[in-house]
Amino acid sequence: MQFHKIPNVLAPLVGKVISVSGWLVHTNRHISKSIKFNQLRDVQGKYLQLFSQEPLQVPKKWSAENIWESAGNAKPVSSALDDTAYQAVSPESVVNITGKLQYRPERDRRQGNEFELKVENLEVLNMAHFIPFGPNDENTSLPVQLTHRHIQLRNPKYNHNLRTRSHIAHIVRNFFHMNEFVEVETPLLFKSTPEGAREFLVPSRQEPGKFYALPQSPQQYKQILMASGIGSYYQLARCFRDEDLRYDRQPEFTQIDLEMSFINSPGQIMTVIENLFSQLLQKLGKNPITSPFPRLSYADAIEFYGSDKPDVRYDLKLLNLTPFLPNSEVSTEVLVLRDVKKPISNAEARALCEQIGQDVSFVTIRSNSQLSGWTRKVPQLKHLSLDLEKINEKLGLSPELTLFIANRPKYMSSGTTPLGRLRPLLHDLLVTQRQLPPLNDDLLNFTWIVDFPLFSPADTNSESLVSTHHPFTAPHPEDLHNLSSSPLNVRALHYDLVVNGVELGGGSIRIHDPKLQSIILERILKLNQQQLDTFDHLINVLQSGCPPHGGIALGFDRLVALLVKSNGIREVIAFPKTSSGTDLLIGSPSTVTEDQLKEYHIEITNKI
Amino acid sequence: MQFHKIPNVLAPLVGKVISVSGWLVHTNRHISKSIKFNQLRDVQGKYLQLFSQEPLQVPKKWSAENIWESAGNAKPVSSALDDTAYQAVSPESVVNITGKLQYRPERDRRQGNEFELKVENLEVLNMAHFIPFGPNDENTSLPVQLTHRHIQLRNPKYNHNLRTRSHIAHIVRNFFHMNEFVEVETPLLFKSTPEGAREFLVPSRQEPGKFYALPQSPQQYKQILMASGIGSYYQLARCFRDEDLRYDRQPEFTQIDLEMSFINSPGQIMTVIENLFSQLLQKLGKNPITSPFPRLSYADAIEFYGSDKPDVRYDLKLLNLTPFLPNSEVSTEVLVLRDVKKPISNAEARALCEQIGQDVSFVTIRSNSQLSGWTRKVPQLKHLSLDLEKINEKLGLSPELTLFIANRPKYMSSGTTPLGRLRPLLHDLLVTQRQLPPLNDDLLNFTWIVDFPLFSPADTNSESLVSTHHPFTAPHPEDLHNLSSSPLNVRALHYDLVVNGVELGGGSIRIHDPKLQSIILERILKLNQQQLDTFDHLINVLQSGCPPHGGIALGFDRLVALLVKSNGIREVIAFPKTSSGTDLLIGSPSTVTEDQLKEYHIEITNKI
Repeated sequence: MQFHKIPNVLAPLVGKVISVSGWLVHTNRHISKSIKFNQLRDVQGKYLQLFSQEPLQVPKKWSAENIWESAGNAKPVSSALDDTAYQAVSPESVVNITGKLQYRPERDRRQGNEFELKVENLEVLNMAHFIPFGPNDENTSLPVQLTHRHIQLRNPKYNHNLRTRSHIAHIVRNFFHMNEFVEVETPLLFKSTPEGAREFLVPSRQEPGKFYALPQSPQQYKQILMASGIGSYYQLARCFRDEDLRYDRQPEFTQIDLEMSFINSPGQIMTVIENLFSQLLQKLGKNPITSPFPRLSYADAIEFYGSDKPDVRYDLKLLNLTPFLPNSEVSTEVLVLRDVKKPISNAEARALCEQIGQDVSFVTIRSNSQLSGWTRKVPQLKHLSLDLEKINEKLGLSPELTLFIANRPKYMSSGTTPLGRLRPLLHDLLVTQRQLPPLNDDLLNFTWIVDFPLFSPADTNSESLVSTHHPFTAPHPEDLHNLSSSPLNVRALHYDLVVNGVELGGGSIRIHDPKLQSIILERILKLNQQQLDTFDHLINVLQSGCPPHGGIALGFDRLVALLVKSNGIREVIAFPKTSSGTDLLIGSPSTVTEDQLKEYHIEITNKI
Repeated sequence: MQFHKIPNVLAPLVGKVISVSGWLVHTNRHISKSIKFNQLRDVQGKYLQLFSQEPLQVPKKWSAENIWESAGNAKPVSSALDDTAYQAVSPESVVNITGKLQYRPERDRRQGNEFELKVENLEVLNMAHFIPFGPNDENTSLPVQLTHRHIQLRNPKYNHNLRTRSHIAHIVRNFFHMNEFVEVETPLLFKSTPEGAREFLVPSRQEPGKFYALPQSPQQYKQILMASGIGSYYQLARCFRDEDLRYDRQPEFTQIDLEMSFINSPGQIMTVIENLFSQLLQKLGKNPITSPFPRLSYADAIEFYGSDKPDVRYDLKLLNLTPFLPNSEVSTEVLVLRDVKKPISNAEARALCEQIGQDVSFVTIRSNSQLSGWTRKVPQLKHLSLDLEKINEKLGLSPELTLFIANRPKYMSSGTTPLGRLRPLLHDLLVTQRQLPPLNDDLLNFTWIVDFPLFSPADTNSESLVSTHHPFTAPHPEDLHNLSSSPLNVRALHYDLVVNGVELGGGSIRIHDPKLQSIILERILKLNQQQLDTFDHLINVLQSGCPPHGGIALGFDRLVALLVKSNGIREVIAFPKTSSGTDLLIGSPSTVTEDQLKEYHIEITNKI
């Protein structure tokens, strides 16, 4: 038997008898006692109006129970029907409906809803007995939705999200294929590495006491592939990170992962990504983007936006006072709110500062006289001897302004400054007040953030350094001479891709010189011998003929979420986990048997 | 700087200066003291002959060491060259070579090797210091090869295998995309299920004492997707199985996984797969195949070939004597070797029987007189009272024949019978003796095996039943009446795809009726309550409007191995593990710290 979706074009079928299959949606619209309206929803998330003279009922069917009970002398299925008793068809039952397609009455006819099917025959393929909420019911709590994710996914929005995700993956893969990238699947049974986020462990049965770890990225394997002579590699790679989950984090996620050998400049990777996005947006029918994307140095991103993933669609730039201040361990940033129709109130400014929850001050300058003494009201500045004239000039001060002032650490290795967090809140406020236009989500503003520092202080009180990104990142060749004397002044050949304030991913040119790699691991990061041992294989690989190479990884879930304009990645992942890492539908994680644990040479500690 | 591959078409470039990058291959061909030949191998696995007047040498370059030592006052990199000292370029070093392309001397010119590059300039991008074996060295032991997999992968054969794998994945995905399948990524952090092979466990940090399990297949999730309204799903899915590895098994592997809703007949899935392979083989330039593929019932496969994955490219069919024998617990199978130019010797027949290592007998019939008493020489038959005339007629006996005889269990739920194992060995022998033509690996002979039994005896001594495949497989509708009275006589809507004696995968129409699913789990498989609990969510899903559905999973690694004609899947997987589950290159599995174990609430038992 063939089942059918709702046809894309219905007009030519009016007056004809057609069959369509899907889920029955009760709309409870009764024109009169004997006329009922329902809907059919199909596997594309499309609806068709159903029109029937009676409530939808079917003969009671044979059931597995009948057959089991009647044992060997059961009648053949077809004659096991008892067509004297009828039952109502419950919502969300799976049905196959045959009927004549007709136009709806003119008064009910609406764009996209012009037709109805006059039900002539109804076959129930599977009666629904357990429907705790309807697919379009948005008021259900998140745990209930996730426990019955299969019902939520029937909501046409989710159906569309998953279809679009599949379509985006297809476009992305075709792009790489056309550009002669080789798709390589790298192992997921990887090993624990000394740095980075928390890793999921997988005990080994054959090697008692040893563990695999699920990879946070295919970083090491893709570098090895470059040494293996695979020119350009890509993969839509599953990655794992056992961190406490936020709304846009999942323990497993997918990244567009690529690496190219015989390249030595970030621009070569950037061009590939710019071409990818041009093609992707064009094929999705989105607004075209111009490339190359603008580049912003990390230092400027922090200085002007207070963030390494700034939303540059609006201005509200920060200014830095540090050059005008006595030498200090901190850097002082200022946001001057100017050129607004109506200054914000002190209460509004105070509320913004409190939302940041760090020592952010504000001061309002209402008159010229306040220009000469305003710093005395600012805790960050009041004890310092300052050349106020120069500061006022730098800040371009005049009456009817509000200033926000905060201190931040001098070395920001990543993240956001206090005013960098305040900036989007202030922007939102001004949009609410209609002082600024709302942001247009259809315009994707891609920016490269470049020239990150290669190293960052491990913490404020020590001289230890850590890699700002990872220890395989190549130093900027112009800064090599600083490597031993002032490593904090060495820039990395690292680049992040930021769009509309969201970090989509990052990459770098990698180190291919085994000696340079050893120097960084041993003498700068000062790894201990055990940690160094875990990188032995990588040094070996670099020593045996590894070409110059570099790559990038972009968050695929985030990209899809951005393109379908969803609220976070949970809406574009078929079966997401809760913030405590639980799959409420299938019930994972779960307990296992003692025998299983024994076979893997582990036991549970602190058993309750 | 731009680096270049070896151009595909060289003739128009003769006489021009070109630059090419890759690995230096020493060929040690010295025409005279001052003329050297080497080769360059690029990222496509292509070679170009190099011709030079001197051994390839380069100025000693600046090194990371120099820069580190000279600290802050290091000179800029470019002037750090010391071009008075030279060093030889070691094999497998990464180089960029500029030179004039010319035809090789006519006496050396060969098809595909007509050109040589007269080296004018050589830049070493990374000197190789550690090359334990050459990429084309086939005599290295497997552990050494796998420890330096990056060197082995430079062998053009492996380069070709990985590129072809990528190409096949691309064709497969395009096929599904064109046919409106939705690609959905299902979770890899799954949960332990009560049946099937051993599973890798992943301890949970947030839920002490609980575990995820890595999935053996996306079976449950893809069925849930069907209930979620995703019409047709596919995925190239990573799967995990912690079994003792054989040459064609890996702990992680990839399958082409698909499921379709609103279908109820195996033929609908079969057609999709037949179309997929028609398109795949056509796009790969292979011999076309005819579809539909022939179907062979499981019973016939066992009876005629002694195997549920028979190689049907050659005949040598088995015959079954059971109808002619007194009632017995076993089934007796016979292979009659006839129509050969020269009968095989008794020594050869004995050797074949010994290879099977089970009670396989043979008897040779040289003359008509032997026709009346041959069963007395056969241990399986000699004590039985038989109607020899009928048996001889069934077997079509005449002189100059060899018979192989063996007993096998009556209920074969899967696998191979003794004569099913002997059959390919006998075929190999006849090919060696040139009595049969060798098999043509270019001809792919696809066969569907159908009508498997839904259940199999758990073991020979009990009445317990297990699912032959998995408990979600739908029974054949014509056999439903046997479900309670004689479940062993219920056929499954299961189908396996076999090609040239290799099982590529299998699938089935699934149960969508929640009552039928419960009956099978509770009353036939008699799962205990704890086991039943692990299927609760699935019953819920079937109860809330799940359409009829079915699908299939095909081994992608095996498919690629078949298409590139490799010796097992290890040659088409970038980073395979050894038979003890070790990745010798990166050194996984490995030890982890006590802190890590503590965080996951586990400890190692029986620590040495």
